[in-house]
Amino acid sequence: MTSFARRAERVQPSAIREFLALAGDPRITSFAGGYPDPTLFPVDELHKIYDSLLTPENTSALQYTASDGLPELRALVAQRLTADGMPCTADDVLITQGGQQGLDLTAKLFLDAGDVVVTERPTFLGALIAFNPCEPEYRSVPMDDEGMDTVALEEVLRTTDRVKLVYTVPDFQNPTGRTMSLARRRHLVELAERYDVVVLEDTPYRELRYEGERLPTIRSLDPNGRVVHLGSFSKILAPGLRLGWALAEPEVREKLALLKLAADTQNGTLNMRAAAAYLSGFDVEAHIASMLPVYRHKRDLMLATMTEHFPAGTSWTRAEGGLFTWVTFPERLDLAAFQRDVLVPRAGVILVPGAPFFADRPEVHHARMSYSGVPDDRMVAGVRAMGALLADVLA
Amino acid sequence: MTSFARRAERVQPSAIREFLALAGDPRITSFAGGYPDPTLFPVDELHKIYDSLLTPENTSALQYTASDGLPELRALVAQRLTADGMPCTADDVLITQGGQQGLDLTAKLFLDAGDVVVTERPTFLGALIAFNPCEPEYRSVPMDDEGMDTVALEEVLRTTDRVKLVYTVPDFQNPTGRTMSLARRRHLVELAERYDVVVLEDTPYRELRYEGERLPTIRSLDPNGRVVHLGSFSKILAPGLRLGWALAEPEVREKLALLKLAADTQNGTLNMRAAAAYLSGFDVEAHIASMLPVYRHKRDLMLATMTEHFPAGTSWTRAEGGLFTWVTFPERLDLAAFQRDVLVPRAGVILVPGAPFFADRPEVHHARMSYSGVPDDRMVAGVRAMGALLADVLA
Repeated sequence: MTSFARRAERVQPSAIREFLALAGDPRITSFAGGYPDPTLFPVDELHKIYDSLLTPENTSALQYTASDGLPELRALVAQRLTADGMPCTADDVLITQGGQQGLDLTAKLFLDAGDVVVTERPTFLGALIAFNPCEPEYRSVPMDDEGMDTVALEEVLRTTDRVKLVYTVPDFQNPTGRTMSLARRRHLVELAERYDVVVLEDTPYRELRYEGERLPTIRSLDPNGRVVHLGSFSKILAPGLRLGWALAEPEVREKLALLKLAADTQNGTLNMRAAAAYLSGFDVEAHIASMLPVYRHKRDLMLATMTEHFPAGTSWTRAEGGLFTWVTFPERLDLAAFQRDVLVPRAGVILVPGAPFFADRPEVHHARMSYSGVPDDRMVAGVRAMGALLADVLA
Repeated sequence: MTSFARRAERVQPSAIREFLALAGDPRITSFAGGYPDPTLFPVDELHKIYDSLLTPENTSALQYTASDGLPELRALVAQRLTADGMPCTADDVLITQGGQQGLDLTAKLFLDAGDVVVTERPTFLGALIAFNPCEPEYRSVPMDDEGMDTVALEEVLRTTDRVKLVYTVPDFQNPTGRTMSLARRRHLVELAERYDVVVLEDTPYRELRYEGERLPTIRSLDPNGRVVHLGSFSKILAPGLRLGWALAEPEVREKLALLKLAADTQNGTLNMRAAAAYLSGFDVEAHIASMLPVYRHKRDLMLATMTEHFPAGTSWTRAEGGLFTWVTFPERLDLAAFQRDVLVPRAGVILVPGAPFFADRPEVHHARMSYSGVPDDRMVAGVRAMGALLADVLA
């Protein structure tokens, strides 16, 4: 058989994919996926919307449409982005197949093989998966409770050739739940200008702030248009519609749209019509507001249960929003082995071991745990069982 | 601003995209898009399906699912492919974001920059758009009424280094409407084996045969698994759902699935559930059968109107299925200029000028005309007006 392209070597089975498969098993308690709580989906509203869209008078909802996305939906997204401090119009917005496609398209636009992407340490595994087919090199920059350490970033930029992109999830980062401070956001914009790099700002969790003060997006602080800003409907509406957006300078947005056309022609017309009808006909802000106490409660419950049942030497982050906590265990514990040999067979619990979230120099003694998709009783039982097994193994 | 990747040079605005925009204007009679007739969409059935899917008991339809596609839908597609002479199971099938994503993923899997793709002459413009970001070279092979000339193909394979893919639309090709004969299909499979290349068989129009005898797919004739077979729901259900599939050998299919995960995580869950419900709960064969007389009538009407009104020196193909006829004009006529300067301003008619359908050495005196998406009266008026303008210009 003819050989694969060189990029295929960078395309390997991932932890996310294996665990998404296991997560379908009803006997498993999954802290692994970044699944929103399905009881929060606005299913009645969507029922009404699809009911009115699928009529013989309205067949355009099932037909092809513009490759860069339904104009009406782009306009509604632009309104929301403008209200969030990023003045723009429908022409500046590209509709994408979820946030993931924004990562894929941006990588294709900027990265030649051997170009360098700087990531947070750890970073979103799905972004590495998206970038890898472009065959980049990676440098990772440490984080603390203020997000990416931009002083360390400057050192990387100063000493590294061919840096093209700095990738960040500034709000309630995946996997750590951390948020980048305002001072760091400003510093990042300065550095991007000084070192001539593009910032890829990925904000799928941005609307899910249930505590603390909302911070301006990095793009809103950028006078020079160096920031490509990505967002998603997955956490504010539903992931099963696969809708996201990209906001960028006209030249960049135009090229992203052409790459989108090449990749899959367009997003599904029906789902774009539905999202537009939802944004224009229902109160999305009220919907978001109604979700926040649920996620805050779930975070509090998971962290309180960990405090009670996890052994000494274990620590975790406390996110002000989003879906995740990042748990750090004693260095001698390899979470992949622990999950495979102990956690799954003895407790039926899954999480995502931390190693694949490192773009370079992986550390094995962390895990990403999501509190969003598990009912309270199962969450408590799962964390408690995990605590007992950890105590056993670490003893 | 940081420079784009080298592949961005191969990503340029396309004729398809410009014309899809114009086609939304109600004053325009469009023979340009490959739009199916929207009156044929099974909108009542889809209304029932979404009505039953969007209930509080059924929120999994809005949640994430497996990245390679809903297992139930893959199984149903596998049944149809098996019935079409390609024995397979759900595990062999990947759900894609329309047929276009199958082109994108296959190109990414096999093509390094400088590798050669052999296409029909002319070929589907959207495939060139999908392949271009991988920076291939192209060689095109002449066609006749039996499809790609495989003797000419052998000469190309014998004399060209680095051929990785042979791309074909064997059934009712886009743009010519031609179908590859059984003898040529067998010859193509032999050549693929002899010259160690992959065949990419793209079959979006396969079910739309309204005349003549159904031929076996190229994949069904291939004992060695060298054929990647792509299909689409766009013409048998509706394009606005953006659903297609790829069938390939396990190693190839696994890599395509990983590239799919990297590109956009998954297709929309809701639409996949809907397509599965349609295939399992309704009679898709009866639906397809009901469409065929409509398309046959439209083809007959367009060709008869052209016979009546187009000037001498003009010829066209007669497709046994699908949506297109390929019209060849006197060599001195540049269809892009004619459309821009005469056809649009004086008749409000658009088509797709032929040049961009050539992977190399473009010819300007052809056009692709689609008869699928235009009501009869407008079709007749548009073809008649076009004929009068042609007579003027050629006089």
